[in-house]
Amino acid sequence: MWVSNTHGWGLRTAHTLPARTPNPHQASRLRRVAPVDVHIALLGYGTVGAAVHRLLEDTSDEIARATGRRLRVTHALVRDLEKERGHSPAEGVLTSDVEAILGDGEIAVAAELMGGLEPAGSYVLSLLERGVSVVTANKQLVAHRSPELFAAAAQSGAQVRFEACVCAAIPVVRVLREALVATNVHRVLGIVNGTTNFVLGEMEAGRTYEEALAEAQRLGYAEADPVDDVSGADAAAKMAILASVAFGARVAPEDVEVQGIEAVTPAHIAAARALDMTVKLVGQATTTEEGADVRVGPALVDRHHPLASVEGAFNAVMLQGDAIREITLSGPGAGGIETASAVVADLVSIVGTTGPGFLQDDPARRALPRAPAEAVRSPFYVRIDVDDRPGVLARIAGHLAVEGVSVARLVQSQADGGATLHVVTHEASAARLAASLRQIAAMPETRGSPTALRVVSDRGVEELGWT
Amino acid sequence: MWVSNTHGWGLRTAHTLPARTPNPHQASRLRRVAPVDVHIALLGYGTVGAAVHRLLEDTSDEIARATGRRLRVTHALVRDLEKERGHSPAEGVLTSDVEAILGDGEIAVAAELMGGLEPAGSYVLSLLERGVSVVTANKQLVAHRSPELFAAAAQSGAQVRFEACVCAAIPVVRVLREALVATNVHRVLGIVNGTTNFVLGEMEAGRTYEEALAEAQRLGYAEADPVDDVSGADAAAKMAILASVAFGARVAPEDVEVQGIEAVTPAHIAAARALDMTVKLVGQATTTEEGADVRVGPALVDRHHPLASVEGAFNAVMLQGDAIREITLSGPGAGGIETASAVVADLVSIVGTTGPGFLQDDPARRALPRAPAEAVRSPFYVRIDVDDRPGVLARIAGHLAVEGVSVARLVQSQADGGATLHVVTHEASAARLAASLRQIAAMPETRGSPTALRVVSDRGVEELGWT
Repeated sequence: MWVSNTHGWGLRTAHTLPARTPNPHQASRLRRVAPVDVHIALLGYGTVGAAVHRLLEDTSDEIARATGRRLRVTHALVRDLEKERGHSPAEGVLTSDVEAILGDGEIAVAAELMGGLEPAGSYVLSLLERGVSVVTANKQLVAHRSPELFAAAAQSGAQVRFEACVCAAIPVVRVLREALVATNVHRVLGIVNGTTNFVLGEMEAGRTYEEALAEAQRLGYAEADPVDDVSGADAAAKMAILASVAFGARVAPEDVEVQGIEAVTPAHIAAARALDMTVKLVGQATTTEEGADVRVGPALVDRHHPLASVEGAFNAVMLQGDAIREITLSGPGAGGIETASAVVADLVSIVGTTGPGFLQDDPARRALPRAPAEAVRSPFYVRIDVDDRPGVLARIAGHLAVEGVSVARLVQSQADGGATLHVVTHEASAARLAASLRQIAAMPETRGSPTALRVVSDRGVEELGWT
Repeated sequence: MWVSNTHGWGLRTAHTLPARTPNPHQASRLRRVAPVDVHIALLGYGTVGAAVHRLLEDTSDEIARATGRRLRVTHALVRDLEKERGHSPAEGVLTSDVEAILGDGEIAVAAELMGGLEPAGSYVLSLLERGVSVVTANKQLVAHRSPELFAAAAQSGAQVRFEACVCAAIPVVRVLREALVATNVHRVLGIVNGTTNFVLGEMEAGRTYEEALAEAQRLGYAEADPVDDVSGADAAAKMAILASVAFGARVAPEDVEVQGIEAVTPAHIAAARALDMTVKLVGQATTTEEGADVRVGPALVDRHHPLASVEGAFNAVMLQGDAIREITLSGPGAGGIETASAVVADLVSIVGTTGPGFLQDDPARRALPRAPAEAVRSPFYVRIDVDDRPGVLARIAGHLAVEGVSVARLVQSQADGGATLHVVTHEASAARLAASLRQIAAMPETRGSPTALRVVSDRGVEELGWT
């Protein structure tokens, strides 16, 4: 239990004292007090849970020095007490009984590392209702249920921290909530799924989608069932969380427009290369006066753009705001020890900061409508396979023009007795481009379905070459 | 004055109460309390000072919502009260009398934005001794005098924050101190001077050093007297600060080995390109078992390395640590509003966190010796112009071998009736390489002085091509 008259230094502070009654001996006196034990519960003791435990043990002295607290794991919830584990906690720490944790009044903070919506959600909610702060690495839980979690935390005065939900150790949530408090972040661009970034990189190196995915599975970057990654669902949950934090408004995963990488072909990769671009699965969250627009989909990224150089299973997030222009954070987006590092930093921050008040309240405090599809414009790359007959090009250009889609570049290449049209548009609305592509798809000369990928570039599309 | 029984929410928290006595009405009751005014003094009211003031005014509601505090600039210290200013503060805010600030018991936090070691240093010290927390954007002050500033802060229970000293709005100090608390950061690589990065980029585009520097001056990236930038001194001060924070040990600017960009020639740029590299002014701070090594100098950076894509006046810092592998942060490294954004985030963090205890104490708390020059090894690119005579190559190779410098690649090109040798070494110590180059320079066949630039690459040098 936290006893209010037992102070590690840092609990009683200059700010709760009148500013002008400094006691020159106070800080050094408090420094010598033995660190206060803080009891921590881990819900889940798999790869990440065990790594959190090991990291807390390894950095215990360092954390005690910095915070005056010794973070001690007293409980770790597991399903099977008998299972062999790489890291064995001390006798009595493992428990399969959640009530042992919920009923223990000494536990100050819990880390939820189980995954899944239930029972994790009920456990977290019970802890928050009891005033126990929670760190979670569970992106589905945060993406789907953050409103009730934050409401419970606000009621009891507990904190919820969730850095590990997005991009593992890359501290993007902290940077958004604390470092950029004074800047209005209006756009978040991210490569937030390492599996798909690896697969697209392998395709760039010449493999087919199927070969690249098999390689990702062999290396452990992709699950046996990779649908959550390749469909964009994982990236969508992360972008929903990032958009909520960046815009201070709730964005649910259902609000995210998602397209996966399944339809990306070597032909797209080749076209990207010809434009000095690279194909990435990009999440884009934008606020305009009309609301928020959040989407995930494959995009052509200009080689000069900071996201283009994100290789392999790495992640990167670019934050664009009024006072900062843009800040990009990149690093490994997954991994047990990387995720554990984010969890431990959150644990330490909870122990070292004041209650739920300071920047730790519900990050999504306002309502922001979903922007109409019209509102968010972007340049696009469009690929259309056609029979090579006179008049086709004119009719295609006509369908684009009717919907107000303006062509910046057009390259025609010959293939299979037909022609492939590569079109780069000026900024256009996705909805109106889709309408024109439906018309083009219905033309008798059109082969297969035209495909459209967003273009991400800081340069004007008119500056793009084609080699 | 901060009155201990007047609470905005966030001051009295779950952590100072027993964990299991939640009061479900507390948070919402406190939320409705009108925000508490916090008096802020600005020392200096130039570009950054005025931008801080404007940003505090523009985001006042947002900050009050998040923290329960209204940050109000009550004093701004200027030299000349009569000077015309872009942003005019309210009547009575500007003062040319520092005693009006030092003697005002209501001021809780000050932002020092004057620059220079004195009188800024004395003012900051006086404020800290009085228990007033200080945010500073003054890198020279922090680099040279942080020990006494942190000692004064620890005595009085005040905080010192200094994000704006390094890379403007890129929150690298915060990330090191808070997000990476549980990871042992053992290497910091940085492009921390935008002026030189711009100049080198222009040289890559075909300009000479002189042309590029003139262009930087025309655009306002470089001062009329650019020596602080091009000599590497500015980067050295920043790397000293970053190394101190990352390693938790004092690194003074004098401890940094510095080389500027004045000696970089178009020939170096061309050689870098042939190796699929680019020339950057790179700061490198490393801890080994033998101590800390911090240096700044031009280096050849592999195009696949995250630092290679940092263009124009941007900055980037890569942090390498045990639990995180590597995290890179990049963005604009200068600018009034960008710097102001960092200052405001620090102000808000001081208002919202507990005293000097939590991770806000002296970041350089331990002593770490300077690593011997032998201890830190790196691959190098060496360029040697020689008369094209038999036996020269063998003698050069001999001088390198004597000092244990092993050659990974050697390319010879013809020029001016002589030859240029481009050597890429395996990892070598700078000291021993320099010794061998002294021998080589003394050879009668050697023309001019051989130059050596570090190579920064994640790939082995044997994988490098030459085109």
